[in-house]
Amino acid sequence: MSVDQVLARIDADLDRSVDRLKELLRIPSISTDPAYKADCARAADWLVTELRALGIDAASRPTPGHPMVVGHVGEAAEGAPHLLFYGHYDVQPVDPMELWHRDPFDPAIEDTPKGKVIRARGASDDKGQLMTFVEACRAWIDVHGALPCRITFFFEGEEESGSPSLVPFMQQNADELRADIALICDTGLFESAVPAITTQLRGLVSQEFTIHAASRDLHSGMYGGIAINPIRVMAKILAGLHDERGRVTLPGFYDGVPELPDEIRAQWQGLNFDHERYLADVGLAVPAGEMDRTPLEMIWSRPTCDVNGIWGGYTGDGFKTVLPAEAHAKLSFRLVGRQDPQAIHEAFVKYVKDNLPPDCTATFHSEKGAPASQMATDDPAFEKARQALSDEWPRPAAYIGCGGSIPIAGYFKDILGMDALLIGFGKDDDQIHSPNEKYDLESFHKGIRSWALILDALSR
Amino acid sequence: MSVDQVLARIDADLDRSVDRLKELLRIPSISTDPAYKADCARAADWLVTELRALGIDAASRPTPGHPMVVGHVGEAAEGAPHLLFYGHYDVQPVDPMELWHRDPFDPAIEDTPKGKVIRARGASDDKGQLMTFVEACRAWIDVHGALPCRITFFFEGEEESGSPSLVPFMQQNADELRADIALICDTGLFESAVPAITTQLRGLVSQEFTIHAASRDLHSGMYGGIAINPIRVMAKILAGLHDERGRVTLPGFYDGVPELPDEIRAQWQGLNFDHERYLADVGLAVPAGEMDRTPLEMIWSRPTCDVNGIWGGYTGDGFKTVLPAEAHAKLSFRLVGRQDPQAIHEAFVKYVKDNLPPDCTATFHSEKGAPASQMATDDPAFEKARQALSDEWPRPAAYIGCGGSIPIAGYFKDILGMDALLIGFGKDDDQIHSPNEKYDLESFHKGIRSWALILDALSR
Repeated sequence: MSVDQVLARIDADLDRSVDRLKELLRIPSISTDPAYKADCARAADWLVTELRALGIDAASRPTPGHPMVVGHVGEAAEGAPHLLFYGHYDVQPVDPMELWHRDPFDPAIEDTPKGKVIRARGASDDKGQLMTFVEACRAWIDVHGALPCRITFFFEGEEESGSPSLVPFMQQNADELRADIALICDTGLFESAVPAITTQLRGLVSQEFTIHAASRDLHSGMYGGIAINPIRVMAKILAGLHDERGRVTLPGFYDGVPELPDEIRAQWQGLNFDHERYLADVGLAVPAGEMDRTPLEMIWSRPTCDVNGIWGGYTGDGFKTVLPAEAHAKLSFRLVGRQDPQAIHEAFVKYVKDNLPPDCTATFHSEKGAPASQMATDDPAFEKARQALSDEWPRPAAYIGCGGSIPIAGYFKDILGMDALLIGFGKDDDQIHSPNEKYDLESFHKGIRSWALILDALSR
Repeated sequence: MSVDQVLARIDADLDRSVDRLKELLRIPSISTDPAYKADCARAADWLVTELRALGIDAASRPTPGHPMVVGHVGEAAEGAPHLLFYGHYDVQPVDPMELWHRDPFDPAIEDTPKGKVIRARGASDDKGQLMTFVEACRAWIDVHGALPCRITFFFEGEEESGSPSLVPFMQQNADELRADIALICDTGLFESAVPAITTQLRGLVSQEFTIHAASRDLHSGMYGGIAINPIRVMAKILAGLHDERGRVTLPGFYDGVPELPDEIRAQWQGLNFDHERYLADVGLAVPAGEMDRTPLEMIWSRPTCDVNGIWGGYTGDGFKTVLPAEAHAKLSFRLVGRQDPQAIHEAFVKYVKDNLPPDCTATFHSEKGAPASQMATDDPAFEKARQALSDEWPRPAAYIGCGGSIPIAGYFKDILGMDALLIGFGKDDDQIHSPNEKYDLESFHKGIRSWALILDALSR
C-alpha cells in the first residue's frame, strides 16, 4: 500500500477535514464544569459516529464521569504493530470571556501575519490534534480500503479535569486496550519547522486549600487590628514557598529530582532554544525560575510550584472594608524524575499546618497526582517515527522534554506495559488554556500527513 | 414641654415605628454597585416623604452620585441649639449571599436567645440607627406639635462607597447646613447596658492594586518555572507589609501616631473591655495586632493595614493549570492621630513599585482618604448628652474610641466648623457588613427614647 496516494488524498480533502474539525469544536465539552456534562457526552457521541463511518467498531463507554470512546479496527499482522491512539475530546474553561475576540465555540479560519489559523477553544488542545490522526486514518481507508496495521482508538473526556475515571477504566479494560505501543497526540512542535517526539514529561500535583479564621466576615473598623486576617496568613504561606534563589522550600521537595544526563544536556544545547523570543511572545524578558538553571531545564526538567488561582474577601466593584473569614488558593506542582506526588502533597499540607498562626485552620482538597514520565527511546519505533516526521517537515525531528503533564503516558506504562510516542503539532503561541486559543492550519494539514507517514513507517 | 409624654408616645407607637423601618429596609440601596442606583434614589424619596409627613421642609437633592436628603424644621430660639442630624440610607453589598438565612431585603423580627432582633441588610448600619432619630422627632411632634429646638436633617446615600459627592455638596451648601453641633448616629453601644459617645475615630485609606506580568494567561506546563507568576509576587508584597511583631513596615507609616494620653488610658482601663468575649463572639481567641498593645488600643487608637479582598487566576470549580497574567488586591488602612492619608497612599505605591521583580508592573486605584477625628469634649453639649443617655440605660454612658471611620465627622469640623456628638445603639454582634445583619429591637426602642431625652437635655 503506497503512502503517496494517501498524502495526495489528504491534500485534496483538507477543506472537508477542517469542516469536520469545526463540527467538533462547536461542542462546548468543558469537563471540569458540571454545567457542560451533556456537551461532553455529545462530543463523545460525535466521535463514535465519525469512527463508525470509517468502518471502525466504536462505542461511547460510560464512566462515573464523562464517557470514554473506544474503537477497534484491523487484525494483527506479521511485522505490523498493534497501535493504540489516545487523544482527549474535553477542553479547558473559557474564562476570562471578555478577552476572547470571538465566541470560543464558534470556530473560524482566520488569516494572521503568521498564516491561517483555526480559532476556537480546543482547536489545539486537543480536538485539532486528535482529528489529525482521525483524518489520516480516513485517508488511508479511503485510498486503500484499510489501515496498514491494527489500531485501537481511545479518547478520553476528563483530561482537563484530572482524569478521575481513567485509571479505573484502563484497569477494568486492560486486555482490550493493550497494544504494542501508544501514540499520544497532545504535545507540540519544537519550533515551526522542527517536529518533535517528547520523551520526558513532568508530573503534576494539584492542590486547593482554604485558610479559615473568624466564624464570619468582619468589619475592618470594628475588628481591624485585633482579628487575624486569613488573606494575610495566606500571603505569608504562599510567599514562603520559594526561597530567594527560586527554589521550592518544602522539606524533601527535591528528593528524586535527577541531574540532567550529559548527553541530553548536549542535545538540548544543540536545539538553540531562543528563550528570549519564547518569553517575549508573552510579554516577558527574564527567566523567573531557579537562578542556576538554564531556561530549557526550567520548563522541561526542573520541578515547580505555582499558584494557579487565589480568592478571598470582597472582589466586586468599589471598596468594602471587610475582614474576610476565609481565603482560598489553588496550586499545582510540576514534578520530574522520581518525585513522589503523595509525598509532595503531604509535605505541602504539613508546611501549611506548621505555619498557621493561632485561631486559623486549613482545609485541603486535592486530586490524585501523577509522577513524571521518561520513555525508553531504544525501542525502534521511536527512530522510525522520528524519520517519518523528518521526511514531512523542513528540519529533522528532535527528542525533547515537555514541561506539561500528560499522566496518560505514565498510566500506559504502569497499567498496560506500553511505551508511548508523544507526537503533536501544537505551537507555543497556540494559547491553549488561554483566551483566543488557535491551531495553525499548517499544523493541522502537515499533522495529518505526518500521521499517514508514521503509520506507513511503523508498519514496515 | 415635658419629655415624659414623648417617651410614653414612643412606647405606644413602637410597632408602627418598626413597620416604617421595615419599609425602608426593603429598598436594596447598595450604593457601591451601579445596578442599584434607582433603589438608592427610591430610598431617598421614601425619607423625603416621611419627613414631609412630619411637617419638615425636606427634599431629595441631586448629586453626580446618589441624592442627598436635606430637611429643615423649627426656628432659632434663645437657649436652644440648632442641631444637624446626620445618617446614611445606603447599605453594604450582601455577598456572600449563600450565608444569609433569609432574603437580606425582606426584613423580619426574629426571636433570638438574646432577645428580639430586626434582621436585614442595613438594619443596624445605618437605616435602623437613622430611624431612631426620625421616630424620636415624630413622637415630639405628635405630642407637642413641635420639636424643642431647630433641627436640620442631612441624610447621605454614598457612605458605604466612599462618599464621593459629600464634600462638594457640603461646600456648596455650607450656609444651609451649618448648625451649632452635629448629631451622628452611626456608632454603637459600648456594651449592652453601657451607652457611649464616641470621641475619637480612625481615618481610612482604601487602595486597590493589580500586578501585571505576562501579556496573557499562560499554561503552567509550558511556562511554569520560567515565567513570573503575579500571584506569587502579590503574596510576597502583601506578606511584607507587616513585620514579625505585627507592625506595618511602610516607611513613615507611624508618623503622626500619638501615644494614648494617660487619662484616656485610665478611662479605657476602667471600661474592663472583655476582649476574650469580643473575639470569642466571632470564633477567635488571640489578639492579632501589634504585640505590645492592649486590645482596645488595637481597635481604637492604633493604625492598621488590612487586605479586604484578593483575586487572580482560576477560581472556579476543579483545577486549571494556568499561570495568570494578573493578580489583584484591595487594601484598607485605618488611620489615627495626624497620619496623612495622602502620604500613606504614596508610601504604599512606592513600596509596591520598589518590590516589583523584573517583567512586572503595578497599577493602582484609590479613593480619597480621610484622616482620623478627635472631638472637643469640653463643649457642654457632650456632658448634657452623656447624662441623658445615662438616664435611659442601666449603666452610665462612656466616652470611647472607635476603630471604624466616619469621615463625615471630620468634614463637619473642617467645612462647617462643628463638633459632632457620635451616638449610636449598634452592638458588636450586629454583623454589619456581613451576612445576617441585625439590629436589636431594644437598640431601636431605647435608641428612640435616648434621642427624645437628648433633644430635651440639649434644649434646656
